[in-house]
Amino acid sequence: MKELRVELNEKAYPIYIGSNLLTQKELLRKHINSKQVLIVTNTTIAPLYLDSLVEGLAEFEIQVVELPDGEQYKNLEYVTRVFDHLLEKKYSRNSTLIALGGGVIGDMGGFAAACYQRGIPFIQIPTTLLAQVDSSVGGKTGVNHPLGKNMIGAFYQPQCVLADIDVLDTLDDRQLAAGIAEVVKYGLIRDIELFEWLENNMQRLLDRDKQALAHVIERSCVNKAEIVAEDEFESGIRAILNLGHTFGHAIETGIGYGQYLHGEAVAIGMGYAADLSRRMGWLDNNDVDRILALLKSANLPVIPPKEMNVTQFIELMSVDKKNVDGKIRLILLESIGKATLPMSVEYTLLEQTLINYAG
Amino acid sequence: MKELRVELNEKAYPIYIGSNLLTQKELLRKHINSKQVLIVTNTTIAPLYLDSLVEGLAEFEIQVVELPDGEQYKNLEYVTRVFDHLLEKKYSRNSTLIALGGGVIGDMGGFAAACYQRGIPFIQIPTTLLAQVDSSVGGKTGVNHPLGKNMIGAFYQPQCVLADIDVLDTLDDRQLAAGIAEVVKYGLIRDIELFEWLENNMQRLLDRDKQALAHVIERSCVNKAEIVAEDEFESGIRAILNLGHTFGHAIETGIGYGQYLHGEAVAIGMGYAADLSRRMGWLDNNDVDRILALLKSANLPVIPPKEMNVTQFIELMSVDKKNVDGKIRLILLESIGKATLPMSVEYTLLEQTLINYAG
Repeated sequence: MKELRVELNEKAYPIYIGSNLLTQKELLRKHINSKQVLIVTNTTIAPLYLDSLVEGLAEFEIQVVELPDGEQYKNLEYVTRVFDHLLEKKYSRNSTLIALGGGVIGDMGGFAAACYQRGIPFIQIPTTLLAQVDSSVGGKTGVNHPLGKNMIGAFYQPQCVLADIDVLDTLDDRQLAAGIAEVVKYGLIRDIELFEWLENNMQRLLDRDKQALAHVIERSCVNKAEIVAEDEFESGIRAILNLGHTFGHAIETGIGYGQYLHGEAVAIGMGYAADLSRRMGWLDNNDVDRILALLKSANLPVIPPKEMNVTQFIELMSVDKKNVDGKIRLILLESIGKATLPMSVEYTLLEQTLINYAG
Repeated sequence: MKELRVELNEKAYPIYIGSNLLTQKELLRKHINSKQVLIVTNTTIAPLYLDSLVEGLAEFEIQVVELPDGEQYKNLEYVTRVFDHLLEKKYSRNSTLIALGGGVIGDMGGFAAACYQRGIPFIQIPTTLLAQVDSSVGGKTGVNHPLGKNMIGAFYQPQCVLADIDVLDTLDDRQLAAGIAEVVKYGLIRDIELFEWLENNMQRLLDRDKQALAHVIERSCVNKAEIVAEDEFESGIRAILNLGHTFGHAIETGIGYGQYLHGEAVAIGMGYAADLSRRMGWLDNNDVDRILALLKSANLPVIPPKEMNVTQFIELMSVDKKNVDGKIRLILLESIGKATLPMSVEYTLLEQTLINYAG
């Protein structure tokens, strides 16, 4: 088992990465300081891993909320089900909430923990590669609004993150690839070695080689933890984690939450960002080809959805947390391994990318 | 004009107290760093003060959300209306939200600001005495749940609080008295001089003497700011601000939000707390008489609602943010001017109070 730490001003917390962690009872127990524990999970994960988790927590009073599985349920209505349960069962402010699931469960469980009684302790047990390498680390929680993704939420840090590599055995191929998209992102924004490692080892990841998975989870979490430690509330550098996400969120919102997996939309978005970075004169054709080839080798989509037009993209991208006074700002690439801070782009260039980028 | 400061680790912010502040344009402007400004107010306050406020902010892009007036609307459904508006009008993360209204508007506006894009700047302009002396200061925001008051929320601090004494001219008598309840609270928990001042000057307050109002607002805010600076997230001393609130919240939730004003329910709750403190041997009959006499002199109710029985009280008090592992904890009085920290009470004593206290 590896232990990384996210170093924050107010508190630090560990990320545990390894095999067979879910059943190591002591790991979780030392982060729970209450009798009452609520596990928030979904109907896909519960039959697979809930029993193992509950078994290790026999001395606590455990309740479980099972939400339906999918991004289309990541909204205030379903978070309210968690609040209802916490109140019906009279959970106190020292209770612990455990989010057992992928990014959707982590975001919703974390947001429920942030808001219930103005904040109760919570623990992230990510069960998808995407959640293990990205969304479970760093304290971003929240839900979607019909008009914009992740628009309602809180910065709220967990007590710990427990990334058990073994749970990835049951992940379907599409979910695995979606997680790899965020790993590619770390390579692109600040870790060229990771990018090159991926170019040479993609098949090992697709074959679910444990060592390869452990490597990318650890490298991703190291990158994420460093960025979050530097800028917890995203007033600066943290925004580079958004590479491809402005385009990606527009796709998720425009096509309808749950149609594209988040990682898939981000993969297409990174293609757009690469294309636009080329138009800025920063990447050359060879760079863009390498990026697209790597994404394709992970079986990720890079071709934009035909259903969306330029006007719709612009409209949806105008609602983004990086924007200032309503102006679209994007993360682009100066080179493979080096992202820009959020920047406005000349409208004609952005339009050219939206019209011409074809994956 | 007086300026007090709430000193917090991460940031400090001013409370401005005085006459005719709403129209002093420079005051607000220096706390707004964006073009986009959303004013959240209610249908009672808007016709009275919205125009004056908007006039002073002519160089900004202003939108207004008017919510219905009353505690019964302080819930997620109505906060969602604020989110809808922010998204429809594409408000960016650097936008400013101004809460213009009483405690309900401040709590909801503050919670919307805390959650929109994981936090945008906001400003409190409290228009009731209760909000000016208590709820607008200290960063507690949130909404009610059918099963418990203020159960969903966030600690989120404003950029500034602007308490204009002149707006109290239009406050109805019942609302004025409700605000006085929280002033009495500061006297009871830590400021015996304020308590005695109230014993001698209640009629001046009821007559809306400006100097008297300015005095109690300032004394209350000084008390609140000191406590909040010491314990922003209520891990200790801040809980004493909850004197009477555990009983009070039970009444508000049990009878139905909006039937009793918050300050009225707290007044009854402080009567319960005084009675229980006497049973603990800390207050004598004379102390309790003084407390009840002071509350009555403000035209506040001290008689518990007949509709609620002991079982219902216990049930509702079991859902309270001070509770630990589901056990009821209360703030009591060691003497007039000195509150206890949250404490469990022997069940039989609590029951005696619930059965026998009659105001």
